[in-house]
Amino acid sequence: AQQFDFSDHSHRRYNPLTDSWILVSPHRAKRPWLGQQEAACKPNAPAYDPKCYLCPGNERATGVQNPNYESTYIFPNDYAAVKIDQPPLPHNDLGRDTLKNRLFKVQSVRGNCFVICFSPKHNLTIPQMKQSDLVHVINAWQKLYNDLAREAREDQKPFKYVQIFENKGTAMGCSNLHPHGQAWCLEAIPSEVSQELKSFGKYKHEHNADLFADYVKLELEEKTRLVLENDSFMIVVPYWAVWPFETIVVSKKKIASISHFDQKQKEDLASIMKQLTTKYDNLFETSFPYSMGIHQAPLNATGEELNNSWFHMHFYPPLLRSATVRKFLVGFELLGEPQRDLTPEQAAERLRKLDGKVHYLEKL
Amino acid sequence: AQQFDFSDHSHRRYNPLTDSWILVSPHRAKRPWLGQQEAACKPNAPAYDPKCYLCPGNERATGVQNPNYESTYIFPNDYAAVKIDQPPLPHNDLGRDTLKNRLFKVQSVRGNCFVICFSPKHNLTIPQMKQSDLVHVINAWQKLYNDLAREAREDQKPFKYVQIFENKGTAMGCSNLHPHGQAWCLEAIPSEVSQELKSFGKYKHEHNADLFADYVKLELEEKTRLVLENDSFMIVVPYWAVWPFETIVVSKKKIASISHFDQKQKEDLASIMKQLTTKYDNLFETSFPYSMGIHQAPLNATGEELNNSWFHMHFYPPLLRSATVRKFLVGFELLGEPQRDLTPEQAAERLRKLDGKVHYLEKL
Ligand SMILES: O=P(O)(O)O[C@H]1O[C@H](CO)[C@@H](O)[C@H](O)[C@H]1O
Ligand SMILES: O=P(O)(O)O[C@H]1O[C@H](CO)[C@@H](O)[C@H](O)[C@H]1O
Repeated sequence: AQQFDFSDHSHRRYNPLTDSWILVSPHRAKRPWLGQQEAACKPNAPAYDPKCYLCPGNERATGVQNPNYESTYIFPNDYAAVKIDQPPLPHNDLGRDTLKNRLFKVQSVRGNCFVICFSPKHNLTIPQMKQSDLVHVINAWQKLYNDLAREAREDQKPFKYVQIFENKGTAMGCSNLHPHGQAWCLEAIPSEVSQELKSFGKYKHEHNADLFADYVKLELEEKTRLVLENDSFMIVVPYWAVWPFETIVVSKKKIASISHFDQKQKEDLASIMKQLTTKYDNLFETSFPYSMGIHQAPLNATGEELNNSWFHMHFYPPLLRSATVRKFLVGFELLGEPQRDLTPEQAAERLRKLDGKVHYLEKL
Repeated sequence: AQQFDFSDHSHRRYNPLTDSWILVSPHRAKRPWLGQQEAACKPNAPAYDPKCYLCPGNERATGVQNPNYESTYIFPNDYAAVKIDQPPLPHNDLGRDTLKNRLFKVQSVRGNCFVICFSPKHNLTIPQMKQSDLVHVINAWQKLYNDLAREAREDQKPFKYVQIFENKGTAMGCSNLHPHGQAWCLEAIPSEVSQELKSFGKYKHEHNADLFADYVKLELEEKTRLVLENDSFMIVVPYWAVWPFETIVVSKKKIASISHFDQKQKEDLASIMKQLTTKYDNLFETSFPYSMGIHQAPLNATGEELNNSWFHMHFYPPLLRSATVRKFLVGFELLGEPQRDLTPEQAAERLRKLDGKVHYLEKL
């Protein structure tokens, strides 16, 4: 009788971080694609663009002039999604069991948003930056995290969680090619993060162990989903990956937040991020789009929050088959559940085999 | 003192269907957009395209020839995400508390996938179809639902839930402009649907009432999010909408599934769908992209499943500002929580004011 083949037969995998399922249909990768093509990237941008509002010395929409920064540069987002001050939300009949209180639940959200320029050079991306320059980015993230935590403690600022992320490439809604990320700091813990904290807490309660301690152990044993590792971090295509070449960067030992990083861990993170993004660019010989971000402990975390926090980064890249053909997470994915067209093991194998040291543009 | 203004100040709203939160930042709609532009649609397609694999009489990738259908036409997807037969999943050490059993949870999934051509005419879309032709589409959905339920009961087919949906437009991953939808039928209830069933069950348990009975009552009283209504259905931009012009079509009285629709309800659904999609097209004078689909009772539902099921449809359209500028649900949205740039009330007001009877192309 025929045997079940994970690289051919459909199955669902469980994501223990978000408590949800993903449909894996490996044979679907064979179907022809006649739909939308992404724009191919133009690798010939100048190192300085007089029209870019992120380049050193240029003027922003608000009239503010950027300094002539030489490494990283952080400033508050001119179109912040949340603000530090706003009037309190009226709570008229709160507490009463009205239909409105049952169905229209609402919270006010204050906070602040920042833009983080990774480099003064307009035409660089993470894989093209020097490792030492990436350490500056990690330093900037660490300083921001610590500063926000202090402002919350000492100045009663409405800051509870800072979501650090990067949208890279037009396919991921990025509107400026200048290398930059963002940090949105809110007085509430965002849904996705609080779901993860809940899952880690549940796992600890049920198994008296850290989910990520067990996960790191298992992935380093199995090795089929492993993409990269060094002393401090491992990168795998998670068992429950949704995006075709999704990866997760996990610290091998428990680190609750970037605040605790020592120099060695910073070097190791810079090195493994550079290698991962080099592999990504080499995969389809294009500037690989993605959204990526850090999940870690809330600011001034409670004991329980600290217990349930473990530094990791998610990379969500949309490309599926080539520089111009992406995966769309649409109809079935939005209404039913996420669906993928190749197994995480297949994706990991391709990423593992790619050169992580030399970027394809250097070879041209 | 300044008052809290929902159309200016940031807040989070709770989605009781999926038990998650959405960040609303209305003032962000003012930021400039320099990012990706969607392709404008070409309204001059022919009624018959010899190269289209969905047009009547044409040959598909598999060599099968389509019949000369004159109304709707259903066939099994040539690249189905799930199949009726596959070998069983081996369960070697199942039940033992190993790390693998804790962290690598997996299920086999069988089922079948279908393509549903809405019309033989290659260049029509739902708003351009006659109401009587849309009733044929609803009849096709009903027949498919009933047939699959019967095959599960009588022939032990692995069918438990059928997800009916449409991806419209290249921005939503549609690769063929010929008007068509899909139906993916699985032996498992997809994550999103099972989360909704759970939420409806919880609401019933806590309040001894149907969530949608209360919701319909409240929205018809408030009217600020109402877009359309008729005897059988209402359409609102839900209080917790994520996509800019997201809507939900809810039956006013409890109907567990399309299987129970009578002729009047079919006419009413056809009419309200035609009006909604006409408004959508008129909003930016373009063929408005969206993913939409039906949530309803599982096939051969248990008593509890039936109790917790209430027919509704979700429309998830990506456009935000114009025919070419969409909302990207990326970095913060993927890592933190969904974020929107206008309030559901603002979106509903714009949709409400638009013509739902005459399509902009008819006026040209
Ligand atoms: O089945 P299609 O039309 O080829 O494909 C489209 O819809 C599917 C179901 O939502 C998605 O998984 C695909 O990413 C999308 O391109
Ligand atoms: O803030 P930006 O770069 O203007 O905007 C981008 O990132 C945001 C945060 O993920 C998203 O809400 C926007 O849809 C996206 O275009």
